[in-house]
Amino acid sequence: MTEFRGVIPPVVVAEHEDGSFDAESYQRGLDRMIEAGVHGVFALGSSGEGAFATPARREEILRATNEVVAGRVPVLAGVIDTQTDRVIEHVKQAEKIGVDGIVATAPFYALGGMPQVEQHFRAVKASTDLPMFAYDIPVCVHTKLSPALLLKLGQEGILVGVKDSSGDDVSFRFLLQDNERAGHPLSLLTGHEVVVDGAYLGGADGSVPGLANVDPAGYVRQWNAYQAGDWETVRKEQDRLSDLMRIVMVPSSTTGFGAGVGAFKTALKVLGIFSSNQMPEPVSKLLPAEEEGIAQILRQAGLMD
Amino acid sequence: MTEFRGVIPPVVVAEHEDGSFDAESYQRGLDRMIEAGVHGVFALGSSGEGAFATPARREEILRATNEVVAGRVPVLAGVIDTQTDRVIEHVKQAEKIGVDGIVATAPFYALGGMPQVEQHFRAVKASTDLPMFAYDIPVCVHTKLSPALLLKLGQEGILVGVKDSSGDDVSFRFLLQDNERAGHPLSLLTGHEVVVDGAYLGGADGSVPGLANVDPAGYVRQWNAYQAGDWETVRKEQDRLSDLMRIVMVPSSTTGFGAGVGAFKTALKVLGIFSSNQMPEPVSKLLPAEEEGIAQILRQAGLMD
Amino acid sequence: MTEFRGVIPPVVVAEHEDGSFDAESYQRGLDRMIEAGVHGVFALGSSGEGAFATPARREEILRATNEVVAGRVPVLAGVIDTQTDRVIEHVKQAEKIGVDGIVATAPFYALGGMPQVEQHFRAVKASTDLPMFAYDIPVCVHTKLSPALLLKLGQEGILVGVKDSSGDDVSFRFLLQDNERAGHPLSLLTGHEVVVDGAYLGGADGSVPGLANVDPAGYVRQWNAYQAGDWETVRKEQDRLSDLMRIVMVPSSTTGFGAGVGAFKTALKVLGIFSSNQMPEPVSKLLPAEEEGIAQILRQAGLMD
Amino acid sequence: MTEFRGVIPPVVVAEHEDGSFDAESYQRGLDRMIEAGVHGVFALGSSGEGAFATPARREEILRATNEVVAGRVPVLAGVIDTQTDRVIEHVKQAEKIGVDGIVATAPFYALGGMPQVEQHFRAVKASTDLPMFAYDIPVCVHTKLSPALLLKLGQEGILVGVKDSSGDDVSFRFLLQDNERAGHPLSLLTGHEVVVDGAYLGGADGSVPGLANVDPAGYVRQWNAYQAGDWETVRKEQDRLSDLMRIVMVPSSTTGFGAGVGAFKTALKVLGIFSSNQMPEPVSKLLPAEEEGIAQILRQAGLMD
Repeated sequence: MTEFRGVIPPVVVAEHEDGSFDAESYQRGLDRMIEAGVHGVFALGSSGEGAFATPARREEILRATNEVVAGRVPVLAGVIDTQTDRVIEHVKQAEKIGVDGIVATAPFYALGGMPQVEQHFRAVKASTDLPMFAYDIPVCVHTKLSPALLLKLGQEGILVGVKDSSGDDVSFRFLLQDNERAGHPLSLLTGHEVVVDGAYLGGADGSVPGLANVDPAGYVRQWNAYQAGDWETVRKEQDRLSDLMRIVMVPSSTTGFGAGVGAFKTALKVLGIFSSNQMPEPVSKLLPAEEEGIAQILRQAGLMD
Repeated sequence: MTEFRGVIPPVVVAEHEDGSFDAESYQRGLDRMIEAGVHGVFALGSSGEGAFATPARREEILRATNEVVAGRVPVLAGVIDTQTDRVIEHVKQAEKIGVDGIVATAPFYALGGMPQVEQHFRAVKASTDLPMFAYDIPVCVHTKLSPALLLKLGQEGILVGVKDSSGDDVSFRFLLQDNERAGHPLSLLTGHEVVVDGAYLGGADGSVPGLANVDPAGYVRQWNAYQAGDWETVRKEQDRLSDLMRIVMVPSSTTGFGAGVGAFKTALKVLGIFSSNQMPEPVSKLLPAEEEGIAQILRQAGLMD
Repeated sequence: MTEFRGVIPPVVVAEHEDGSFDAESYQRGLDRMIEAGVHGVFALGSSGEGAFATPARREEILRATNEVVAGRVPVLAGVIDTQTDRVIEHVKQAEKIGVDGIVATAPFYALGGMPQVEQHFRAVKASTDLPMFAYDIPVCVHTKLSPALLLKLGQEGILVGVKDSSGDDVSFRFLLQDNERAGHPLSLLTGHEVVVDGAYLGGADGSVPGLANVDPAGYVRQWNAYQAGDWETVRKEQDRLSDLMRIVMVPSSTTGFGAGVGAFKTALKVLGIFSSNQMPEPVSKLLPAEEEGIAQILRQAGLMD
Repeated sequence: MTEFRGVIPPVVVAEHEDGSFDAESYQRGLDRMIEAGVHGVFALGSSGEGAFATPARREEILRATNEVVAGRVPVLAGVIDTQTDRVIEHVKQAEKIGVDGIVATAPFYALGGMPQVEQHFRAVKASTDLPMFAYDIPVCVHTKLSPALLLKLGQEGILVGVKDSSGDDVSFRFLLQDNERAGHPLSLLTGHEVVVDGAYLGGADGSVPGLANVDPAGYVRQWNAYQAGDWETVRKEQDRLSDLMRIVMVPSSTTGFGAGVGAFKTALKVLGIFSSNQMPEPVSKLLPAEEEGIAQILRQAGLMD
């Protein structure tokens, strides 16, 4: 069975200035992460423009991911959509293209409480043999997944893991404990790149750091130190990475997704990996002055001269 | 030019027990509303399962709507989706099928502030000649549309109107005043069926009441009284309709969309218009005991014996 | 028994530049409202700096209110504080000074759900014979009072009324209906000065408009038209008042309380009623440029030359 | 200068069944914590009923604290109130009784943004020579303190530290880094008892764990391991304490403060330290069945036989 643990970055998408998919840039970014030693990749997540992509663009991204990865690490595909039937269409597409697992959020837009969330995960899983992660991201879907539900679905084999982007480290710690006590049915990954060390101290099975698009080697070193029990290295590497994360505070021309993923893309452009920092409609790309601010932080972090 | 004013109900979708689209029930509901005198219909809104429907189901619903309506009243189609390119795909589909206007929300899931919302509406409108309404529904999309932006887009011809489901009657009142002063570029419709009378008193151009699926004649009578300046009738009709709206408080087995739209569907079933109160996955349909509670309210309201 | 209905403005507090209470300005404002025909006054509400005042300042304000009002209209006193025992201390103070009724919010800071809110109102009422209003203001206390609880407490004689600043006109309409059906135990007042007409159409017993500090005559005329069933005057007066309310949109140097109550005070200064637009610590008073913007709106509204 | 670092529990208040202050129980709890080696105590915080206490009760609690502590460790006093002048009254009282430092939140009830928050801290500090902590607790005050503001106020000597109960571990990590880089002007304490280990890994100067009322020795052992760089002990102790924290999940009769602080008090009663688990009005004390559930967890944690 495929193992989903370690550093599994959400893959940032590359676009040409005209908005079309930039396969070459995307390949450079992906190759660089795999060569740095990441343990999997997650396409079409929140950072991976899952909420922006049409079915055709989804197919383009997933095919490119598969082609570049070529089995070197497992590929997770986001199947983020408002409700069950729409999610299942994405699952079918992902199955056809061939991925190693899927990642689904709670339903959103029209909400109905935990029983409806549970039924959603059950119905999605009933449609596929692919291993499924739950993606806990209340800032986007406005529902916090309950640890008790996640564990139950793990024990029943509906879920194989959780990507936690809930911002609730207390709840995540309780889930880590409950999962351990239940025989570890779930692979528990943190999505908060700034405090991965704390999640590892609590026993997390890995991380899904958007910032690993920019510095994959750092997150891999941190993972290795964690595996070796070398906590001083884990925390020092974290402090370095958290400083690097300040690239997302540079933008003043935009906020939210545009500032965060915009900063990642701009860093990749500055590093010569992406040909452009183009964003998907309706998001504006960062401005040249912001690019310069990001370059400065990259220099301080030793990622460029 | 098509006029969008008066009572324009969001059309509740009918499904068979197996989840397939129930064209006959749907036709009965739609015919009943048009015969009662509604001034337009809005398909694939929040109540119209726009967030649940796959592209194939969207096509089924829009084609059925067009066929039944047959030009008797204008048809608005919801093009609700997370971000611009996905919305534009729905616009293209709606254009092909042939509707009279579209209704778009702010982008959601990944947020970025008012400038991004503005760019979203501009980009969607650039893709089509169809008249476009903005749908202000922060409870679902977690962004409140600013009255200043709405008015600006109206004056530029990007928007022809607003469906206000913001729950913010103060903001809506200011918009009504600003719109009047600017020469009335926008058709301003309230989506709050319980306080339509207050919106009319403020000068609203119409309403989009989900409850009009259950009692279209009541909302038409209220509109006619409004046009005649007969405020006592407007408020008395409202009190009757607000009492009827209490069907959404009957459900205890579910919450949110399932309780609200579930109550509308169940009322339509009880009234013999829908063959089932089936809900889309992952929502459970209301239970027999809840059906009985709703029937009681329908009897009190004089809608059945 | 004292009747609390009609226009009952929350009284804005006047301060000297050194922060001390300005009794002369306060008297001018209060006299002007009573002479305009308001039906009661509400001291130490949210606009009345209840959350800013120390016990000594509370006493100063209540004594001044009583002295100026001199029995011409009923006086309500806010007893807003975090939890029960602290509220009861304010009740005891108000009793000693002598007021006609008190106004209490849900407890805040440490929350515990509706049962705790219910116990709070019961315990406060058990401490006094004064008639008590519930003040529903979730934007400040982060709890929405349930209509069912309010009605129950009204029927038991714990509450004599509700000041609704919930921003939820749907919920308020249901409460208006339920209260009517139950024999009208509660006096239901709206706190939303921009849409008082809609609340009157729904049957409200009065209003508590902060803006009535600036234009008391307008709200009294609107009330009289309401009592006469003259809806065209009700709505036209509302449109005029809602335009006047735009003074709260003038400030750009501050937000929230400082902008809203700051605009009211600044208008009173511009009108020559208050000697200063001083705000309580830590709020900054509005700037001269903002004063000018407010003066312009007052001129447009015909309140000054 | 007094040093505020290490384990500084917020002291839970003991009450007799009639609601009066139970000085003997309070002394037993406080003595037990000091004997276990805690490095300070924090009276009248959120867990310490600061939002429930009248001035007289505040005085009773502060005097009792001082008397029991008798200089063995520093005493911090919460001065939590809605706005500046009210907070300053609490500061004056605390000064008179004699404490080593004060802890103030952002203003609440009436909000006005960061400039107003800044002015609040400046004005409070201008009133006293006592060292002041900022208490970042958005769940109660609905304002998140900005790290940039906190650091600035630290560098100017307005603040000596921060108690972080923000639930935002990402923001806290950035603050820890910024504070270090600025020469460590602030003592940074975490209030999240379940993830203290992560905060220590990030370099926190201490913790303010409510749960330390129940198991002070555990938090002291964890602190000592942190100082020794023994991370395996830090995390193991955390896992034990996080399991113990599940006492707050036992209550089903109440929520929020009543469940959390209620569980702490009930544990102290079960352990024979408090004579009662009485809560302040309007909060109900936990039920006997809940007491039994809490006792079970205490037994599993080895805190009783």
